[in-house]
Amino acid sequence: MDEVLARIDSERDRSISDLKDLLRIPSVSSRPDHSADMARAAEWLRARLEAMGLETRICETPGHPIVYAEWLSAPGKPTVLIYGHFDVQPVEPLDEWSSDPFEPVEEGGNLIARGANDDKGQMFTHVRAVEAWLSETGSLPVNVKFLIEGEEEIGSPNLPAWLRENREMVKADVVAISDTSQFGPGYPSVCTGLRGIATFEMRVKTGQSDLHSGTFGGAVPNAIQVMTDILASFHTPEGAVAIEGFYSDVVEPTEEERASWARLPRSDEQFMREAGTRSLWGEPGRTSIERTWSRPTLEIVGVTAGHQGPGHKGIVPATAVARFSTRLVPEMDPERVVRLVQSHVAKRTPPGAEVSAVCGHGARGTLIPADSKWVQAAKRALAVGFGKEPVFIREGGSIPIVNLFQGELGMPCLLLGYGLPDDRIHGPNEKFSMADFQSGTRTNAALLAELAAL
Amino acid sequence: MDEVLARIDSERDRSISDLKDLLRIPSVSSRPDHSADMARAAEWLRARLEAMGLETRICETPGHPIVYAEWLSAPGKPTVLIYGHFDVQPVEPLDEWSSDPFEPVEEGGNLIARGANDDKGQMFTHVRAVEAWLSETGSLPVNVKFLIEGEEEIGSPNLPAWLRENREMVKADVVAISDTSQFGPGYPSVCTGLRGIATFEMRVKTGQSDLHSGTFGGAVPNAIQVMTDILASFHTPEGAVAIEGFYSDVVEPTEEERASWARLPRSDEQFMREAGTRSLWGEPGRTSIERTWSRPTLEIVGVTAGHQGPGHKGIVPATAVARFSTRLVPEMDPERVVRLVQSHVAKRTPPGAEVSAVCGHGARGTLIPADSKWVQAAKRALAVGFGKEPVFIREGGSIPIVNLFQGELGMPCLLLGYGLPDDRIHGPNEKFSMADFQSGTRTNAALLAELAAL
Repeated sequence: MDEVLARIDSERDRSISDLKDLLRIPSVSSRPDHSADMARAAEWLRARLEAMGLETRICETPGHPIVYAEWLSAPGKPTVLIYGHFDVQPVEPLDEWSSDPFEPVEEGGNLIARGANDDKGQMFTHVRAVEAWLSETGSLPVNVKFLIEGEEEIGSPNLPAWLRENREMVKADVVAISDTSQFGPGYPSVCTGLRGIATFEMRVKTGQSDLHSGTFGGAVPNAIQVMTDILASFHTPEGAVAIEGFYSDVVEPTEEERASWARLPRSDEQFMREAGTRSLWGEPGRTSIERTWSRPTLEIVGVTAGHQGPGHKGIVPATAVARFSTRLVPEMDPERVVRLVQSHVAKRTPPGAEVSAVCGHGARGTLIPADSKWVQAAKRALAVGFGKEPVFIREGGSIPIVNLFQGELGMPCLLLGYGLPDDRIHGPNEKFSMADFQSGTRTNAALLAELAAL
Repeated sequence: MDEVLARIDSERDRSISDLKDLLRIPSVSSRPDHSADMARAAEWLRARLEAMGLETRICETPGHPIVYAEWLSAPGKPTVLIYGHFDVQPVEPLDEWSSDPFEPVEEGGNLIARGANDDKGQMFTHVRAVEAWLSETGSLPVNVKFLIEGEEEIGSPNLPAWLRENREMVKADVVAISDTSQFGPGYPSVCTGLRGIATFEMRVKTGQSDLHSGTFGGAVPNAIQVMTDILASFHTPEGAVAIEGFYSDVVEPTEEERASWARLPRSDEQFMREAGTRSLWGEPGRTSIERTWSRPTLEIVGVTAGHQGPGHKGIVPATAVARFSTRLVPEMDPERVVRLVQSHVAKRTPPGAEVSAVCGHGARGTLIPADSKWVQAAKRALAVGFGKEPVFIREGGSIPIVNLFQGELGMPCLLLGYGLPDDRIHGPNEKFSMADFQSGTRTNAALLAELAAL
């Protein structure tokens, strides 16, 4: 084990250099014009895993391909399925990046690129850990399967059906996923909860075409006016979600969880620093931790309507589009939330306007019991990898597929996040600490040994 | 005179064909990439006026060029300055056009193209009227000057300075402008009032960059949330403008005006049909005519923020942009309105957000006395051109330069609009009735004779 860790340390530069090659492939899953890049990223990973000594294959889906690889030569030992994704979020607004998002740069101990953290960088810590074991010892202490998909950032539309068809192939005792964050610098973390999600596209139509604002303005409905009135009605002036019934299924965290969270050093100042904002906002009477871990929220993510470019245009817009999402706590049913949102919108649709709010994708949140043997093994591995006792946290984000692994397929999940909350994943100048990349790789290597001992 | 009118009638097809050539030039003044088209349109007009026998020149400005032409061989007779513009509004959203906006098509007696009405089509009725007089008689009954600018749709930023420098050259007894509308089909109209305008660009910033909506959503300010809350606050739920002091300078129309407007056949149903909407909206207790002619309004014309394309993106947007305008009645000072709007926005800017509302351009509205000899001459010309007595109306739109003509330069203006309220100017599928194009040309020809008799 020590030799494996020593090898990880000594191969640091080559690891980072290899990761950069993967980051240079602009695998944006939501953009049809990047489909060739998606195939290229999948093949890059497959070839890498094959060269390491795993049996690999590219699995086609109706959307983007899945990379699958396995090493099953540890009879009698547990099998771990390592799940990750090689697709990334779009990079717009491009002018807010200080360097090309697909040309990684090192700065202040960080690697800066789209996907540096989410999830190419984090996923690659597992590739590297397995590689170090195989290079050093010629084998692995447990059986390992890799499942690296290309549609996580668009809601994994094809993965559930594929998993159901291939449930024997992917069968494992435990699933390891590194797609979350540490609590903060120096707080290696095991994540025990994720929020669910329901995304929406709202379309407003008030007429056949844009009208002259001099001739008609102030006398006919304006699609942007209708849209903004509805968007503004989603929250109370104080910051709570104002949709009727939205909070009614929410279960408060246990006293123990609240007490443990209260001990975490996340001041408002620290939270603002991580966010890069000058104030906080949200449901009254809740801490930032509660707001993002154990309370549901609604976020407007985009609006597009009327005149877009520079200058002025004298119109009354006839159409408007808004995109928003709700983040849900595990006990909330996304389908019920969709009905609540649609009912809220219908009640606030004025005469003469057509407004639709269509759900893009929805998924329940997740809870992971902190006292399971798998979580305890992960805790020990984190202590080895980071040289420090880990903390238990939740995350506000969503990894919908975790529900399918834990629920339908009966495979417990481990959420081992090596990023930091201020890594700007999904935003410009996404980063990943190269030291955490190394500590994460060491943790994964130790995890294989810990799992072998169970 | 009858020969001139007969010639206009017989040359109809060639006139329409020539207008189509001008409409094919995409002279969008607000788009820098169309500056070559602007120069092309100006040269097209200059060459046309030169060929008709006028002295012409292209006058450069810091922005787009001005076409000037004159025929001054009627000593002792009045001089009329014909003002128009050859620039057009942008054509987006392109997918709502049923044909190429810059490839004119004839359909149901209408010509469909960007600029078919506003203002290439209307302006061309004057070119054609002068041409018919010159072709038929070899001269004109009055002195004529053409001033055709290329920046009307962007607020004529360079015209005022140019007019002040060239005030002797453009000096005239009366200004004729065809850039408004008839009241409706079969209602040839003289317009006696225009609204002023102030346009705004509002920028919201809540953080350094977009954030992950799972990690930060619902706990930090969201730029779109801030923007929509402010935009929604501009109106009362009933539809009045909610900006403090907005209505305080507004003068009600005279009893006579109100009575005359009440006799015009504009039912709510008719107004909705012209607008292509299924409902009306606006300041409570006011008719559609009052709302658009004698009351100030505020219209949101565009919003751009966060994720724009298809699909979903899990972000809390850090920036947002909205564009809106106020349409002002003649007694309102645009500068005061800008201060009122900025104060309203400042009061509603939440902690931690930066919000600016900057005025793009502003101009006062206009009133034209209906009993002047010029307006009475125009009324007689309309009766000749359309074979029907005209009505007196106001318009909700803005032609800022009219104030400079009437006020600073002391030249009374005639607003002779030949379009229709449902011509979709500034919107997709802009149209102009070819019969009205002909009646307008006849009116202009008759106007020259009527002015000669004063």
